[in-house]
Amino acid sequence: MSTFKPINRILMGPGPANVHPKVLEALSKPTLGHLDPQFIELMEEIKLLLRYTFKTENKHTFVLSAPGSLGMESCLVNMIEPGDKVVVCVGGFFANRMVQIVEKIGGQAIVVKETWGRAVDPQKLDDALSENPETKVAAFVHAETSTGALSNIKVLSEIAHKHNALVVADVVTSLGAAEVLVDEWNLDAVYSCSQKGLACVAGMSPVSFSDNAVERIKSRKTPIKSWFNDLSLLESYWFGEGKRAYHHTAPANQYYGLQEALRILKDEGIENAWRRHKENSAKLIKRLKDELNLEPIVPAGERIPHLLAITVPAGVDEAKIRNELLTKHNLEIGAGLGELAGKVWRIGLMGYNSNEKLVDYCVNSFKDVLNKK
Amino acid sequence: MSTFKPINRILMGPGPANVHPKVLEALSKPTLGHLDPQFIELMEEIKLLLRYTFKTENKHTFVLSAPGSLGMESCLVNMIEPGDKVVVCVGGFFANRMVQIVEKIGGQAIVVKETWGRAVDPQKLDDALSENPETKVAAFVHAETSTGALSNIKVLSEIAHKHNALVVADVVTSLGAAEVLVDEWNLDAVYSCSQKGLACVAGMSPVSFSDNAVERIKSRKTPIKSWFNDLSLLESYWFGEGKRAYHHTAPANQYYGLQEALRILKDEGIENAWRRHKENSAKLIKRLKDELNLEPIVPAGERIPHLLAITVPAGVDEAKIRNELLTKHNLEIGAGLGELAGKVWRIGLMGYNSNEKLVDYCVNSFKDVLNKK
Repeated sequence: MSTFKPINRILMGPGPANVHPKVLEALSKPTLGHLDPQFIELMEEIKLLLRYTFKTENKHTFVLSAPGSLGMESCLVNMIEPGDKVVVCVGGFFANRMVQIVEKIGGQAIVVKETWGRAVDPQKLDDALSENPETKVAAFVHAETSTGALSNIKVLSEIAHKHNALVVADVVTSLGAAEVLVDEWNLDAVYSCSQKGLACVAGMSPVSFSDNAVERIKSRKTPIKSWFNDLSLLESYWFGEGKRAYHHTAPANQYYGLQEALRILKDEGIENAWRRHKENSAKLIKRLKDELNLEPIVPAGERIPHLLAITVPAGVDEAKIRNELLTKHNLEIGAGLGELAGKVWRIGLMGYNSNEKLVDYCVNSFKDVLNKK
Repeated sequence: MSTFKPINRILMGPGPANVHPKVLEALSKPTLGHLDPQFIELMEEIKLLLRYTFKTENKHTFVLSAPGSLGMESCLVNMIEPGDKVVVCVGGFFANRMVQIVEKIGGQAIVVKETWGRAVDPQKLDDALSENPETKVAAFVHAETSTGALSNIKVLSEIAHKHNALVVADVVTSLGAAEVLVDEWNLDAVYSCSQKGLACVAGMSPVSFSDNAVERIKSRKTPIKSWFNDLSLLESYWFGEGKRAYHHTAPANQYYGLQEALRILKDEGIENAWRRHKENSAKLIKRLKDELNLEPIVPAGERIPHLLAITVPAGVDEAKIRNELLTKHNLEIGAGLGELAGKVWRIGLMGYNSNEKLVDYCVNSFKDVLNKK
């Protein structure tokens, strides 16, 4: 068997996006032990940079050594005890995964249904919480990767807290690319990923827990049903005063990549990054509409700026087109998931990829495969 | 904040070990999507290489996208249902972690106690299983990283199966460095890590499940209390016929590193790697004894060849010496864990590091800091 030689794809699907070259470079640096004093310094830098990125002062802001889907499970398994009522707002594949997890860990999921491709209607959450006043947690997705819809989680969070529920929010597809204000929006447990707005490699899940969340977790009546995710065990590694206790062997080289990605984002200024994503995506949406008559399924005003679910035109074989984009143009876009399988293409302009050159490349590649030259 | 510049340490603790330069190089290659046809080919190569490494024909041989401690939790949470009796052989820190996990996920742990620093006595397992005939799973650690003791898990596995228990075995510190024969030893669920004998970066957990294990998992009466670890969900990504279903976003660049590491191991020939580890470690043990009067706590015949727990001589400040090795000689060795904290140093010669040059370096560095020049 020979050394693997990956093709240099242009990744404009729902993630991973292309990784910043400096981040790729950082991955190859010499490995440090997970308790090396210099590695502990790196962890401190990552904590600071993540607080900047999440816009939070939460002490419990750090990164889990596994993908974002583990982050989802981690937040839920820490925050929920068996039998707890959890209202989950579901308008897509990933919110639906939250329901699956809540049920697997013994919570009682109450589903607020939203149409796939629409932002969650805050009134529906308010109604569900009024009907279930003993609800412990309200869970929702900020940017629903499967549909391209962006919910107003500031308002959803206000409603949850009005009903004395804590909030678990998925910011997997928003962090770094669209405004996420953890403190201002009063989000209690949030998780994200590394391979989208942060322009890093996949495999890490940044998380942040509010003081209220930590207090809830520490006053649980039942032990957390996971060792790897248990915040009280992770805490001694990430926040041990004076001495850090071994928890797991942190993937040092992955952390090098994350530090570099977060550092680059801070150098740009996160507000500038949000603006860049919005502007490039506006150009892409306009050109797809004007030049190809392709339109997002999500109404204007409810769209994730940087991840579009585009309606596949009638009579077009969506898989064939995706395959031609990949094989002829080296361009990866995403297929539909769940209810939207076969009905949409998903196009991302995230992180390092949010630039005008790729807007051009995407539009021109589509023109070619759809014979609209 | 500036780009992180890790010191190039010599990693002779219990892991991570230094990574093969070709593996470090592989990490920086362009990222592929987790459903890219070329990435699926890479997954197939990894499956084949892991079967070679584990010495198994098990179909369900693949890698989890998280560290070895997640691998431990994954195997246990799949194999055990709430209320199941699980006999765990405990002679160290990591076997103790197995007990913690069994209890967290609702299993009933029956502990077979062994002296820290000794191989597990098979008779004790036999007795425990005789007393608990309804035991579903016997769990044990092959190479106990915290003590340096190597148990005869071939014999432990025979005893478990005689009592109709399935086996969960930890081969975290043995895989790639010492003989591990999954099929011949009839191990039903095994997990390992990437950063020790495999000479790869940390963050991945190779696993293998026997057909009996898979059958047990598929006929569970209760759902698995984890989404991320649920084998029936992971299966559609790793083993879906024709079409692979999305599960999580695989850390592509980490997988490049793993493929390269496994490929290099296969090129060497795993039997040759086992021999190399044994020979270099024998030299290290002899020289530590002859030249420094330092001795492993584990009796000869029960030692992990490539990871030694060395008794700290009376009157020596173990932390001070470790710190001097790190700061003066750039050499990381490990401290004691649990019962052995403060009493031992742990020295590893694993993977890429198992060579005569590092035997010299280690002995000479110890001579300097112990003033035995």
